[in-house]
Amino acid sequence: MSRDRLYLFDTTLRDGAQTAGIEFSLEDKIAIARMLEEIGVDYVEGGYPGANPVDTAFFEENRTKKATFTAFGMTKRAGRSAANDPGVQGLVNSAAAATCFVCKAWDYQVELALGISTEENLEALADTVRTAAASGKEVLIDLEHFFDGYKANPTYALACVTTALEAGARWVVLCDTNGGTMPSEVRDVVGEVTRHAPGEKLGIHPHDDTGQAVANALAAVEAGVRQIQGTLNGLGERCGNANLVTLIPTLVLKPFYAGRFETGVTPENLERLTHISRAFDDRLNRAPARQAPYVGASAFATKAGIHASALLKDFSTYEHVPPESVGNERAIMVSQQAGKSNLLTALARHGIALEKDDPRLEKLLATVKERESRGYSYDGADASFAVLARRVLGTLPDFFQVEHYRAMVEQRHNAQGDVVTVTEAVVKIRIDGELLMSVAEGNGPVNALDSALRKDLGKYSSQIEDLELADFKVRILDGGTGAVTRVLVESRDGSGERWSTIGVSSNIIDASFEALYESITYKLLKTVVAQDSAAGGNTGRARVIAG
Amino acid sequence: MSRDRLYLFDTTLRDGAQTAGIEFSLEDKIAIARMLEEIGVDYVEGGYPGANPVDTAFFEENRTKKATFTAFGMTKRAGRSAANDPGVQGLVNSAAAATCFVCKAWDYQVELALGISTEENLEALADTVRTAAASGKEVLIDLEHFFDGYKANPTYALACVTTALEAGARWVVLCDTNGGTMPSEVRDVVGEVTRHAPGEKLGIHPHDDTGQAVANALAAVEAGVRQIQGTLNGLGERCGNANLVTLIPTLVLKPFYAGRFETGVTPENLERLTHISRAFDDRLNRAPARQAPYVGASAFATKAGIHASALLKDFSTYEHVPPESVGNERAIMVSQQAGKSNLLTALARHGIALEKDDPRLEKLLATVKERESRGYSYDGADASFAVLARRVLGTLPDFFQVEHYRAMVEQRHNAQGDVVTVTEAVVKIRIDGELLMSVAEGNGPVNALDSALRKDLGKYSSQIEDLELADFKVRILDGGTGAVTRVLVESRDGSGERWSTIGVSSNIIDASFEALYESITYKLLKTVVAQDSAAGGNTGRARVIAG
Repeated sequence: MSRDRLYLFDTTLRDGAQTAGIEFSLEDKIAIARMLEEIGVDYVEGGYPGANPVDTAFFEENRTKKATFTAFGMTKRAGRSAANDPGVQGLVNSAAAATCFVCKAWDYQVELALGISTEENLEALADTVRTAAASGKEVLIDLEHFFDGYKANPTYALACVTTALEAGARWVVLCDTNGGTMPSEVRDVVGEVTRHAPGEKLGIHPHDDTGQAVANALAAVEAGVRQIQGTLNGLGERCGNANLVTLIPTLVLKPFYAGRFETGVTPENLERLTHISRAFDDRLNRAPARQAPYVGASAFATKAGIHASALLKDFSTYEHVPPESVGNERAIMVSQQAGKSNLLTALARHGIALEKDDPRLEKLLATVKERESRGYSYDGADASFAVLARRVLGTLPDFFQVEHYRAMVEQRHNAQGDVVTVTEAVVKIRIDGELLMSVAEGNGPVNALDSALRKDLGKYSSQIEDLELADFKVRILDGGTGAVTRVLVESRDGSGERWSTIGVSSNIIDASFEALYESITYKLLKTVVAQDSAAGGNTGRARVIAG
Repeated sequence: MSRDRLYLFDTTLRDGAQTAGIEFSLEDKIAIARMLEEIGVDYVEGGYPGANPVDTAFFEENRTKKATFTAFGMTKRAGRSAANDPGVQGLVNSAAAATCFVCKAWDYQVELALGISTEENLEALADTVRTAAASGKEVLIDLEHFFDGYKANPTYALACVTTALEAGARWVVLCDTNGGTMPSEVRDVVGEVTRHAPGEKLGIHPHDDTGQAVANALAAVEAGVRQIQGTLNGLGERCGNANLVTLIPTLVLKPFYAGRFETGVTPENLERLTHISRAFDDRLNRAPARQAPYVGASAFATKAGIHASALLKDFSTYEHVPPESVGNERAIMVSQQAGKSNLLTALARHGIALEKDDPRLEKLLATVKERESRGYSYDGADASFAVLARRVLGTLPDFFQVEHYRAMVEQRHNAQGDVVTVTEAVVKIRIDGELLMSVAEGNGPVNALDSALRKDLGKYSSQIEDLELADFKVRILDGGTGAVTRVLVESRDGSGERWSTIGVSSNIIDASFEALYESITYKLLKTVVAQDSAAGGNTGRARVIAG
């Protein structure tokens, strides 16, 4: 059975740039366009040439290989022709292969915001489409406020659709500009529109203001549209646009859609999705959402609980798609009710292969349980689990020992009478019998200890140069300042890997120091494993890691 | 026209507890149950009595005032009657008014995971429902894997529904356990089910694995179910449950639903929603999602861009609901007015009455905005807001000043060669010109500072005797150990009142000290206000508080 082609239109670089706190540099835009092509979207909307220097520079050359490079702008202003409108000409003269013009489809907004008549708006629309099409561009029209407009005046909203198509637009995109339309309403309105215009020329541009941008996109597809506009990780104005990282696996993997539609995304593209989604967040300097559908760290994670025994018998019943199909992985969390099989799975993730009857497994299980009863939680601290496992298995190299540390914070008035806070830390470590002592100041005791610890790590100093602390979280387990404190440290290095370590103590400084120490240990371990692997191949690797 | 009643069932404390990295203490559960009642949900599922000590303790007494307090567990095991099943009896004997039992509705899972016949499963279901109902509990049945089960064997899935209802269940809840069902499939399957069972006895329990938990809940409601199960902020296993914080405003504010359905949520409840959502995240020690529908800091934020001019002419066209209806606010610089009314509301909550044109209001607004830009957040720190307001309004008594403090943490080996950590703090304060200096040891620097600070508070010592620190939370705002640290301290006293204070600094010790200092200040303020109120009545109170 032949399937309809669905087109994926990405607007991360245009509508996504409207996200509060987001600002793309030219370098960012170039890198993100590459990511989008790696996913396999059909259109990359790069921005608004003429609106700012970055966008203008971005459109000086073609930035895509396969996807259609698209420029965004407004239809011509009243009182001049499209041929003489600098805005329209900016798009027409850009390196884009397609131009997307926005046009208001709500009569009230036309009169209120533009101050022109509804007829003038239709004339501007037609003139703009004809001019851009005549210049050889593929032409798209974003109909702003389409759904609110349709509810208020369906005749006018439909006139915008047919005017654009008659003038030569390839696509007319129905925008839910303020994000307030329900999926059932989208379905009904799109159903009406397809009586007047072919679905293969219609697109949908939803927003997530009721948490239903993805559902609205799919409802529109079911009702007939054949283009979806969205963004990477759901970036976008206010609550964001439709998240393509969520939509794509649903379209490709779910028989409900895959049986009827095809996209430009291959299974190989899909396997890169988790990586691309996280690399994109890294570029934005923000932590990936753990609970993100398909690609989140928790998307295929299960705590040992009521589902544990069923899970072990058949993973698939608790996983709606195979995690590897989107490049993600199953995470059975090592916690409370951890059993031997959970532990073996977790060890395998770190390249440690043990037999099920290895007596060290029993010892490791007991250690994990004992530590979890004291407040450790290896759920979110996989690197600490790797370090602990190697320690218990006797395969952890003895990198360095901490002999002593001290941290001091003092707040007082200085000579000028201002309040000042001074923080200082001293760390004494031993490497191969040699004592190294360092002192550092910092913004706080943990920062000062971190600086002092890394100031001189002897022969290991060069190995930790690219180690960075990405995040630091503190949780008090029982409440009050005298309770047990759990510290989670997230680190990253030049390879792009991120790892988390944990420290637990009644003393927040002790707990922080432990997590810092384990992060450095994990980083050093990575180097050892890599060197050993390069020198001796798999056998060597297995030897170092699993004893 | 009469509207159907929709029931909201919250499972934050049960399914939400399955979220990776989340662990609720008894204190947390008590506080969260209170938040849920403030929103106006109908059912609070508190956990699984018997599964762990926290849940067991939580069910020793009734924890709700208006909502139906619900215990969760499994239907009876094979080979014994429900009357002799310790699991079932644990629920029946708990303080819960309702019991929710989970039962597998997918024949394949029944045989694979439970290892019993499908008939035995139905018998266990009926026996469990009858036993719990006979004990006087309202009975709910969660049908696990209902949608996958229905696709595989509709007859068996439907038999589970009818068996439960015939045995006396008040509700049968259709669970999309692995979260892979599409809204159109939910709509079709629920439509079929309602031919065999009344919609007013059916519920929906969706998961967000395709980003459509909210849409699935609404599709099920449109198809006939009358109970929705979800969680605060979409907590839950893997990608989470349906987010009630998103669903509730949609049900209450959108004519599409509000015209047909009513809930137990009042407009006043709804105005607290943003506050509760953020306070909940504060309790979980995580940053609220900026782009969350309705309640996110960006939900009504617009960057100056193509929408700016239209926005200035009419906000409503870019806002699908009024931000104040959910207690949120528009984030456009022209929102001065909205800012002032919010502030007046917050001041009134602390008994401070100001006129709208009082010039100090402008000053307080500027101060709050400036401090929030530096990382303060008064959403979850109402007591700090009260202290700040009185400071800016010039009505904060000058209780005591801190001249100097110092905290030191040292880890070393003692004479026996054991590793020991020693923490010591010194605090010097001034009261009415007199200097008081105290020193104390502690489990960590914050605990030691707290002890030293409270050791001698001169004439105020007796007033803070019943002050206790209930919780202490640390969040790093930008990542890394050098970033800005926000500390939230929750305190309580003999009156049962709890209050939260905040401290922000690049130094965690400074931030903690600030929050501790404000907690003591708030406590002393309470005493002053009470004394003054007793002496002079309302006039006196107004004088002290509002100047």
